[in-house]
Amino acid sequence: MKVLLVHAHPEPASFCTAMKDAAVDTLRRAGHEVTVSDLYEQRFNPVAGPDDFGSRRNPDYLVYSLEQRNGWQNGTIATDIACEAERVLESDLLILNFPIFWFSVPAIMKGWIDRVFLSGAFFGGKRIYDRAELTGKKALVTATLGGREHMFGTQAVHGEITGMLRHLLQGTLGYCGFQVLQPFFAFHVPYLSDAERQKWLDDYRNYLGEIETLPRLPMPSLDDYDDILRPLTQKPQPSLP
Amino acid sequence: MKVLLVHAHPEPASFCTAMKDAAVDTLRRAGHEVTVSDLYEQRFNPVAGPDDFGSRRNPDYLVYSLEQRNGWQNGTIATDIACEAERVLESDLLILNFPIFWFSVPAIMKGWIDRVFLSGAFFGGKRIYDRAELTGKKALVTATLGGREHMFGTQAVHGEITGMLRHLLQGTLGYCGFQVLQPFFAFHVPYLSDAERQKWLDDYRNYLGEIETLPRLPMPSLDDYDDILRPLTQKPQPSLP
Repeated sequence: MKVLLVHAHPEPASFCTAMKDAAVDTLRRAGHEVTVSDLYEQRFNPVAGPDDFGSRRNPDYLVYSLEQRNGWQNGTIATDIACEAERVLESDLLILNFPIFWFSVPAIMKGWIDRVFLSGAFFGGKRIYDRAELTGKKALVTATLGGREHMFGTQAVHGEITGMLRHLLQGTLGYCGFQVLQPFFAFHVPYLSDAERQKWLDDYRNYLGEIETLPRLPMPSLDDYDDILRPLTQKPQPSLP
Repeated sequence: MKVLLVHAHPEPASFCTAMKDAAVDTLRRAGHEVTVSDLYEQRFNPVAGPDDFGSRRNPDYLVYSLEQRNGWQNGTIATDIACEAERVLESDLLILNFPIFWFSVPAIMKGWIDRVFLSGAFFGGKRIYDRAELTGKKALVTATLGGREHMFGTQAVHGEITGMLRHLLQGTLGYCGFQVLQPFFAFHVPYLSDAERQKWLDDYRNYLGEIETLPRLPMPSLDDYDDILRPLTQKPQPSLP
C-alpha cells in the first residue's frame, strides 16, 4: 500500500512523535511505501483564506468551497495545498497521528483538513460517504491523550470517544468516502513510565501489523437516502456511539 | 451581561459576518456590553507551540497543558493568549460565531481554543464540567453551514448536529464549566436569496432577544463520578444525541 502519514505535534521528543516513527518503521518493514507530512516541521499554514487561490471564480466574494472546486479544476490553487492533496489522492491509506486537543485534532491539522480536503477532488454536491471520490481508500486515526480509558464509554464521564470524534471519523473521513478503520488511542500519555511507554509502542506496532484486517467503523450509505438526501426508511442512521 | 463574541470568517461580506454584526447591535441595544475578537481581522496565530511561553517549567520537553498552567500562574504566557484569556474570564457570556468547516470550527478558531482555553485558569485536573473554573458563565454557538436542515436528525444522513459538535459543545465548552445554551444554526447559507438571508438575520436577532431564557444542553455532573472519575451509578451519561 501507499501510505500517507500526517503528523502534528509541537514536541519532537513526544510519545506521539515516537508513534509516528514506529509507524513509518513498521509499515516500511511490511513492504508499504510511506510518505510523511509533518505539519509542525513543514510549518504548514492552517488558515483557510483568499490567498489560497491564484485566481478567483468570484474575486469580490469568497465562498471557500466553490473557490476550492474552481482552483483545483484550473490548477490555480496554492502550491502547498495542491502538494498535500496530491499526496492524499495517490495514497491507499491515510493515517492521522496527533495528540487530542479538545477532543479533536490540533489546529494545525484542522487547517490541513480545511485547506486540503478539496471540494471537487475529494467529494462534491451529493458525492459524499459511499458516493464520494475517495471510496476505496482507508483512513486510520492514531492519537494520544491525557485522559484515562475509564473516562470513556456509555456510562463514562465523557461518553464514547468515537462519539466525541464523530466530526472527524464520520463527518470528515467517512464523508469523503474513506473506509474508516478502528482508531488506535494511547491513554494517560503525559504520565507514562518508560516501561509503559514501550509497552504502548509495542502494542501500536502490533496493531499496525493487522492493518489489512482491522475492523471498519459503520458509516451511512446513500442507498438509504433520496436525491436530496432525505431518509428513505425510518431506520436510525448507523451513527457512532 | 458582559459578552465576548469570538468571530472567524475569511469573507468580511459573508452572511456569517452579518450575523456577528447583528449580534453586536442586538445585544448592545439590550444593554449588554459586547467585546469582539475577530480572529481573521486580528490575524490570530492558531498554532500552539513552544513560543507561547516566555519561560518554561521544562525547557527540554514540551507538555503544552503543563506549560499553560505554569505560564498563566507566573505571567509568562504569550501576550496574545493572556489578552484573549482575560476577555473570557471577564465575560458572562461567550459567543462563538463561525462557518462550520468539517463539522467543527475553522482552524483559526480551533487554535484560539487550543491556545486560550488554559489549563489552570479555565479547568484543571478533576476540576471539569460542573467543578470547572468557568461555571456560572454561559456559552452560545452560532454557526452557518451549507447543508440543509433535513440532513440532520436521528434518521438523517449526518445524524444529529449536536452529536457532530459534541467535541465542542460538551468536550470543550461544557468541560470548562460553561452553561451551554441551545445553539443557533443557519442552514444552506451559500444558496440563500436576499429575502431568505434577511429572514434568517431577523430570526437570529429574535433568538438573541431570548438570551436570558434559552434552554441549556445536558452536561455530565461530577456528582455521578468518583475521585478518579469512574461512574458511581449505572445510568448512561446524559450525552448529546
